[in-house]
Amino acid sequence: MPMSIISLTTDFGVDSPYVAQMKGAILSVQRSVQLVDITHSIPPQDILAGAIVLHDTCPVFPAGTIHIAVVDPGVGTARGIVAVRSAATWFIAPDNGLLSGIARRNRPDELRRVENRQLWRSEVSSTFHGRDIMAPVAAHLAAGGDPAQIGPKIDRLIELPWPEAKFSPKECRGEVIAVDSFGNLITSIFGRELATHFAASAAQNEGLHIEIGDTLIRGLSGTYGQAQAGQIVALIGSSDRLEIAEVGGSAARTLRTGRGTPVAVRP
Amino acid sequence: MPMSIISLTTDFGVDSPYVAQMKGAILSVQRSVQLVDITHSIPPQDILAGAIVLHDTCPVFPAGTIHIAVVDPGVGTARGIVAVRSAATWFIAPDNGLLSGIARRNRPDELRRVENRQLWRSEVSSTFHGRDIMAPVAAHLAAGGDPAQIGPKIDRLIELPWPEAKFSPKECRGEVIAVDSFGNLITSIFGRELATHFAASAAQNEGLHIEIGDTLIRGLSGTYGQAQAGQIVALIGSSDRLEIAEVGGSAARTLRTGRGTPVAVRP
Amino acid sequence: MPMSIISLTTDFGVDSPYVAQMKGAILSVQRSVQLVDITHSIPPQDILAGAIVLHDTCPVFPAGTIHIAVVDPGVGTARGIVAVRSAATWFIAPDNGLLSGIARRNRPDELRRVENRQLWRSEVSSTFHGRDIMAPVAAHLAAGGDPAQIGPKIDRLIELPWPEAKFSPKECRGEVIAVDSFGNLITSIFGRELATHFAASAAQNEGLHIEIGDTLIRGLSGTYGQAQAGQIVALIGSSDRLEIAEVGGSAARTLRTGRGTPVAVRP
Repeated sequence: MPMSIISLTTDFGVDSPYVAQMKGAILSVQRSVQLVDITHSIPPQDILAGAIVLHDTCPVFPAGTIHIAVVDPGVGTARGIVAVRSAATWFIAPDNGLLSGIARRNRPDELRRVENRQLWRSEVSSTFHGRDIMAPVAAHLAAGGDPAQIGPKIDRLIELPWPEAKFSPKECRGEVIAVDSFGNLITSIFGRELATHFAASAAQNEGLHIEIGDTLIRGLSGTYGQAQAGQIVALIGSSDRLEIAEVGGSAARTLRTGRGTPVAVRP
Repeated sequence: MPMSIISLTTDFGVDSPYVAQMKGAILSVQRSVQLVDITHSIPPQDILAGAIVLHDTCPVFPAGTIHIAVVDPGVGTARGIVAVRSAATWFIAPDNGLLSGIARRNRPDELRRVENRQLWRSEVSSTFHGRDIMAPVAAHLAAGGDPAQIGPKIDRLIELPWPEAKFSPKECRGEVIAVDSFGNLITSIFGRELATHFAASAAQNEGLHIEIGDTLIRGLSGTYGQAQAGQIVALIGSSDRLEIAEVGGSAARTLRTGRGTPVAVRP
Repeated sequence: MPMSIISLTTDFGVDSPYVAQMKGAILSVQRSVQLVDITHSIPPQDILAGAIVLHDTCPVFPAGTIHIAVVDPGVGTARGIVAVRSAATWFIAPDNGLLSGIARRNRPDELRRVENRQLWRSEVSSTFHGRDIMAPVAAHLAAGGDPAQIGPKIDRLIELPWPEAKFSPKECRGEVIAVDSFGNLITSIFGRELATHFAASAAQNEGLHIEIGDTLIRGLSGTYGQAQAGQIVALIGSSDRLEIAEVGGSAARTLRTGRGTPVAVRP
C-alpha cells in the first residue's frame, strides 16, 4: 500500500510544539504516514486567511491526501468539526468557514460531522481538538478506515464571504488577499477571469492597466526577471492569481501596502 | 516492521541547517524513519525551557518513539550524554538537566551513558555532538539496535530544580513557565493538583480566584471561546496546566507579563 | 527498496505554503519518499548564501540523496535548470551559480540540462519552476527513474566567485560568510587550511592570532564552553570553518558585525 499523506495547516505559529503534539497523536494511530506541513503561520484566528491558503495549496497534492486545518477560535464551544471529501481529497477542520475556498473550488462529494468518539483520543481537552479529535480522525482515514465511521452525513458547510473579483465591461475590481515572503502582493483576481472577460489571453495582453493605490502598471509581465530591478510589475502567478511584484525587491514594502488594498484592472 | 519515530528538539533556531545536518546523520544510518520536529525555538542554551517542552510534548508520542534533545551549552566539555528509557520511550540528550521533566513524569527504567564510539560518526567535532553522536545513536535504536551497545548503565541523571506549584490550605503559588504563540500564559500549576487540593473538580470550580500581577480572575472557564473578546480568562489547558488567556487576543501583551511571573490561586 | 531522500533548500521563507506546493508536486509522482527541509531562510534571491548552505550541509546526507535548491531570481527567463551528480548525490537547481560550492567540493560526475517536459507537471507556470519542473524531476529520480531521461548532458555549470581564504606566509585573510542562530560568525577560513599553511594542527595552535574589526583573539578554543561567559573566542566549528563566538552570547550582536566582515589570522 502506498503511504498515506496527511497535511497540517494551523495558526499555531512556526515551530510550535502544539504542531508536534498533533503529529504525535496521528502517529499513535498510524506510524507509516507522510506528514507535510503546509503552514503554521496563519495569523492567529484568521479563518479567511487559512481558507485562502488551503484553496491555493491543496490542489497540488495528489488524490487521497488528507488535509487537517486548525484555525479554531471556537474550540470547545458548540461549533462542529467536519470531514469533507472534495476532488478525491479529505479535509478535517472546524466547521467555521475554514473550508470555504475548498468548497468553492470543487463542490464536496461527501460531508460528515465528526462525532464518533471511538476514533478520538481517550481524553479530549476542551482547548485542543486539533490534537484530540482531528488528528486521530485523519489517522483513521490514513490507515484505510471507513469514512462512514467518522460520523453522520450533513448537508452543508458554514462558508465565509469569499474575496472575489468583480467585473464590469470597463474594469475589474479586486483586492490584495495575501503578501508572500518575497513581498509579492497576491490578489483576488485570477488570470483565467481576465482572459474570459477582457481578452483572448490575459497573459499576453499588453493593453491591461493595473492600478493599486497611486501606482499604475501597464501590461502584464511574463515573469519576475523580465524587467529591471526596482520596477513594479504585474503578472499572473503560480496559482493563477494576479500578483504585483517588485523586480528584485518587495512590492509590499515599496508600495507600503498589504492585505485588503483594492486593485483595479482595466482592459 | 512499523516505522520508527525520531523526534528532534533543539535551540538551533527555526529553519537552521544544523537541524538538517542532524537529519542527514540519522538518515545515513537508517533511511526509513519518521522524523518529527518538536521545536527548534528553545531560547538559546535555556535548558529548563527545553525540559518543560519535552515534559509537556513527548507523552503524546507513541511507545517506542526516540526523542533527541539538544540544548547543550557544555558541548565538547566533560558533560556526559545519556540515553534514557522512560515510559517505553527513549531520550537521547546531554546530561545537563534537559531530561529533568521527563524523569519527574516517569521514573526512568534504564539510564545509559553514551560512550560507544562505534555507533558515532567517524569524525566527531567538539561543537556539534547532536549531529555526530546523538543522531547516529538515535538511528541505531530506530534500526532496532541493542540499547546495551550504547554504553554502560548509570545510576542517576543531572536534574534541575523544577518549577512546581506550592500549596497551602489557603492558596496555591506558581508561576508562568511559558508563553505560547497565541500569547497564552502557561503556568506551573496543574489542573489535577487544583482538583486534589481545593475541590472535587477544579475545572468546574467557579469559586477559584486566580491572581496574576494586578489582575484578578474569578473562576475557571471551560475554553477560550466562552467569554467576550478582550476578556482575560483562566482555564485548564491541553497539557493540564492552568493557563491565563485573553479571548481573541494575547494575554502576554495585554498584561505585559511573561515567563517567571508569579501566579496565585485561592479556593 | 530503501526510501529515497529528497531535500529542499529555498529562499521562500520559513513556513511558506510554496514549500508545501513543492512537496505536493513531489508526492504526486512518488509518495514513499523521505522529505527533509534544509532551510527556507536563504535571504531572498541571495544565490551565494544558498550555495554556501548547500556546500556545508549536503555532505552530511547519505549517498543517493536528491537535493533540490531553489534560489531563482531568473525563473521563467532563459536561464537553464540543471541536474548534477556529485559524490553519488543528485542536485536539481537553476543554473545560476547555486551549485558553485557543491561543484567546488566534488567535481560533478554528470551534468544534465533539465529539458524533458514529459517529466514535468502538465502545466508549467512561468514563475514557479521549483514546483512545476524541479520537484517532479527530483521525484523521477527518487522513484528510480533513469537520469538520462532528464535531458542532454552539458559540459559546464555557471559558477560564482567563491569566498575563499587567501594565504600568505604572514597571514590568512578571509571573511564572515554567515551568522548562525546563536550569533556565531562563520568564516571562509577552513581549519584544514590553517593546519596546512600555519601549523601541524591548527586546532591545537595556541599561537594563532585572529583579528576581526577591533577585536583580537589569541589562540583557538576547542569548544564554546571552555571559556568564561561573555568571552569572545575563535574555534574550528562543525563544518571545519573558523568561527568567532561569544561564550553564552551572540558574537554578532556584541561585535556588531555580520556577513562580509574581514577576518585575519596570523601565525
